[in-house]
Amino acid sequence: MRATTIHGTRDIRVSDVPDPAIEAPTDAIVKVVAGCVCGSDLWPYRGENPITPGDTIGHECVGVVEEVGSAVSSFKPGDFVVVPFDHCDNTCAHCRAGAQNACDNLGFTSSGQAEYARVTQADGSLVTTGGVPDAALLPSVLTISDVMPTGWHAAVSARVSEGGTAVVVGDGAVGLCGVLAASVMGAEKVIAMSRHEPRQEIARKFGATHIVAERGKEGGAAVKDITGGVGGDAVLECVGTDQAIQTAFGVARPGATVGFVGVPHGVELPVRRMFQRNIGLAGGMAPVRKYLPELLELTLSGAIDPGLVFDMTLPLEQSPEGYRAMDERRAVKVLLEP
Amino acid sequence: MRATTIHGTRDIRVSDVPDPAIEAPTDAIVKVVAGCVCGSDLWPYRGENPITPGDTIGHECVGVVEEVGSAVSSFKPGDFVVVPFDHCDNTCAHCRAGAQNACDNLGFTSSGQAEYARVTQADGSLVTTGGVPDAALLPSVLTISDVMPTGWHAAVSARVSEGGTAVVVGDGAVGLCGVLAASVMGAEKVIAMSRHEPRQEIARKFGATHIVAERGKEGGAAVKDITGGVGGDAVLECVGTDQAIQTAFGVARPGATVGFVGVPHGVELPVRRMFQRNIGLAGGMAPVRKYLPELLELTLSGAIDPGLVFDMTLPLEQSPEGYRAMDERRAVKVLLEP
Repeated sequence: MRATTIHGTRDIRVSDVPDPAIEAPTDAIVKVVAGCVCGSDLWPYRGENPITPGDTIGHECVGVVEEVGSAVSSFKPGDFVVVPFDHCDNTCAHCRAGAQNACDNLGFTSSGQAEYARVTQADGSLVTTGGVPDAALLPSVLTISDVMPTGWHAAVSARVSEGGTAVVVGDGAVGLCGVLAASVMGAEKVIAMSRHEPRQEIARKFGATHIVAERGKEGGAAVKDITGGVGGDAVLECVGTDQAIQTAFGVARPGATVGFVGVPHGVELPVRRMFQRNIGLAGGMAPVRKYLPELLELTLSGAIDPGLVFDMTLPLEQSPEGYRAMDERRAVKVLLEP
Repeated sequence: MRATTIHGTRDIRVSDVPDPAIEAPTDAIVKVVAGCVCGSDLWPYRGENPITPGDTIGHECVGVVEEVGSAVSSFKPGDFVVVPFDHCDNTCAHCRAGAQNACDNLGFTSSGQAEYARVTQADGSLVTTGGVPDAALLPSVLTISDVMPTGWHAAVSARVSEGGTAVVVGDGAVGLCGVLAASVMGAEKVIAMSRHEPRQEIARKFGATHIVAERGKEGGAAVKDITGGVGGDAVLECVGTDQAIQTAFGVARPGATVGFVGVPHGVELPVRRMFQRNIGLAGGMAPVRKYLPELLELTLSGAIDPGLVFDMTLPLEQSPEGYRAMDERRAVKVLLEP
């Protein structure tokens, strides 16, 4: 099949690789209808994460079940499904407690930017859309494989509350989905920290009531101004860098929780500040399957439109350009069509 | 007055110092009836925290109001009061949100191991016992100035739930109060990690259902055994060392929260593990005033008996021996009588 592969720093190609095959009776093969590039794909792209040259890359996709293993009973070829990036059996003790991200049989999509993807624990992982979604809905449905539930997880972890104030650090696609989540959850003030005009615009469409363009101390002061001097009740950290983490703790009010979902890189948590101000930290890799049914319903009903994060669509063959566009911040998020 | 003073590493004395005086109209002076030594006093005692030689030390006490400033309206000389170690106005935005530990007018008791202590923001900080408590209740009432609400805060922060499993790391007085808190909050299993027989006994009296004497990996394996392989739903970290923090995260199930109340010293938070396993961290310096009325009621009614943490009582003049006893772990916690 044709698949996006990574070969080195800023070396993304589209290559011929073997089709994925059923390896365990609980597997399914999905023919990818739409995939996309994740902000976390930029870490290996930029040389920040180790890679094995030639490996496929991409973990977000939706598509049609092509084949199922002998133990898969809930899905059959032809079903249109959302593939959560983190696969789970959805029956183990961790899954039952809502921590599908730590499933005893955890797996990951490894060729979401390709023609086919193998899904482990298909019965537990997959959720069907109940038919082929309208083309107009497809981008939003695609976000539910990772970026939207990840933003949602930031909001849940930060304990966004009705009538409270949520601050979102990061204006990538996850941060924007965090804005949407906080808004849906009823936060009265949703403050998006963003310096980029097009991203500010999406944030406003997603329900941001305030935009703070300043960073560092000035950004913190601006948030303080908006929050009557106290800081945010809930802070969503959607980047993963040390700077973003420090900003997040800087704008949180005492007793607040920072919900973090950006894969941490070089982060040093400010433990003394956390202790003295009672600012908690929660979150991490999103248990996508946990949120999938609710988010799918919100999307299919048109209540939310997270697909707005896609501002570039490319054929699979041009995925290297998709990476470049996101790396250079020319695109918020790139949808790939095999 | 006579007061415990610190002069260097392991150099604690009882000295003559000036009586504390009303400095602001919101102050009160309390004649100390009982004070005590806190685990956190051992940090400067052991040379781990900077000190100013000759300074008074001690932040836990109960006593009788001796004098009040002109703006104090809720208390009068003769009232028997509990003095929370962290003073607060109990009216600012942070206090109203339950983060009295970050009050805009935060203050601290600085001579709790002495004859008199100054309390700032007396109206907000103090709570009266409504008369002189029975001598038998006095130790328990004294715990409410710090150690009991700190253990309680660990349990609240870790989100101990009815029917769940709580693991308590640390068998100092705070950890033991954490065991008591988790038990009162209805945890079905309360696992105390303790190697010391006399402390294990107090933990059992406080409601511990299991004792784990092992440390490190063996300790983690023992907790896993007790929890059906998943780890604790809520973990109370009541020490503050890096080893204790690592143990706490090691025994927490995915999706759990570590409630930390030990002042962190040399702690490096395991941010990758926290992210991958979705193990949160919450807590910090306890907002004592928030919990004080509830804990006082539980104590005066005899529902809880946190005073069991005191296994040594000394006259104020022997406070250096109290420090030695706690430093050498000959005593869990030492009560001082001026």
